Amino acid sequence: MKNLKDYIRNIPDFPEKGVLFRDITTVLQDKDGLHLAINSMQDNLKDLDFDVIVGAESRGFLFGMPIAYNMQKAFVPVRKKGKLPYKTIEQSYDLEYGQATLEIHEDSIKQGDRVVIVDDLIATGGTIEAIIKMVERLGGKVVKVCCLIDLPELGGSKKLSKYNISTVISYNGK
Amino acid sequence: MKNLKDYIRNIPDFPEKGVLFRDITTVLQDKDGLHLAINSMQDNLKDLDFDVIVGAESRGFLFGMPIAYNMQKAFVPVRKKGKLPYKTIEQSYDLEYGQATLEIHEDSIKQGDRVVIVDDLIATGGTIEAIIKMVERLGGKVVKVCCLIDLPELGGSKKLSKYNISTVISYNGK
Repeated sequence: MKNLKDYIRNIPDFPEKGVLFRDITTVLQDKDGLHLAINSMQDNLKDLDFDVIVGAESRGFLFGMPIAYNMQKAFVPVRKKGKLPYKTIEQSYDLEYGQATLEIHEDSIKQGDRVVIVDDLIATGGTIEAIIKMVERLGGKVVKVCCLIDLPELGGSKKLSKYNISTVISYNGK
Repeated sequence: MKNLKDYIRNIPDFPEKGVLFRDITTVLQDKDGLHLAINSMQDNLKDLDFDVIVGAESRGFLFGMPIAYNMQKAFVPVRKKGKLPYKTIEQSYDLEYGQATLEIHEDSIKQGDRVVIVDDLIATGGTIEAIIKMVERLGGKVVKVCCLIDLPELGGSKKLSKYNISTVISYNGK
């Protein structure tokens, strides 16, 4: 049986020279890979008491929505500035490759909501930290961060360790 | 019991003056709304023989992935130019509000694959037509287009009617 790493495609020098990109589209374009990825992430949420999954555009949508459906939870999208149509709050942050501003609808999280953040990958943790800040500003409590891949050498999972991070695959070096 | 239209938020003048935007984030941020939306779309695919779901960034990801998981199919993402890391083919098209270029990985669809395209909404049909062209260039056969919302006055569902379009909600006027 193939394991999850067998489905991931490694692409050198994307999006820029020197970066080894972990391509998860090859996981999803295989029906067995897709099931294995979602099931493995979901296993890390068993017995956890939570209300809502928050996922960021675009890869957080891919993993967050099937898990929300399967576990009968709500899903709240975080999007790039200007994309959400209703009243939002925003948070700027440094990316691995540049800078960006994210937004969330101000009525999407209710005071006291227990929130799980889902994303494909944790690298420097910049995106996830920005999402955490917005969730907390809206009165939510981040009870877990659930990602498929950890790149521990980039420091994100260590920096955010107090947030109960779970990952399925970890890459040390190449 | 609430029906799907009750979960959709109508936002006047977004993204520009005169447009009444149908906001599906309020469907997803309610766990019952989320289940109802996915189940209703999926009902339209029962007994259909197909291999893969194709969804475009970003809202096609939201609806395409849980349906792919539930029906044990593969999922192939279509993304904006420059976002996919491997070899791609591209297609430019006119949007309702501007112009854009989409890409798909060239190895994502195999010759003869039976493809369902999933998206949130069909308006002018420009995005979906671009996806269809790329799927067909890769040798896939589009056996259905499955959307949550139809805006028939914008003509997309009529223009693409030979592709077996299914929608759950239709808005005529306001």
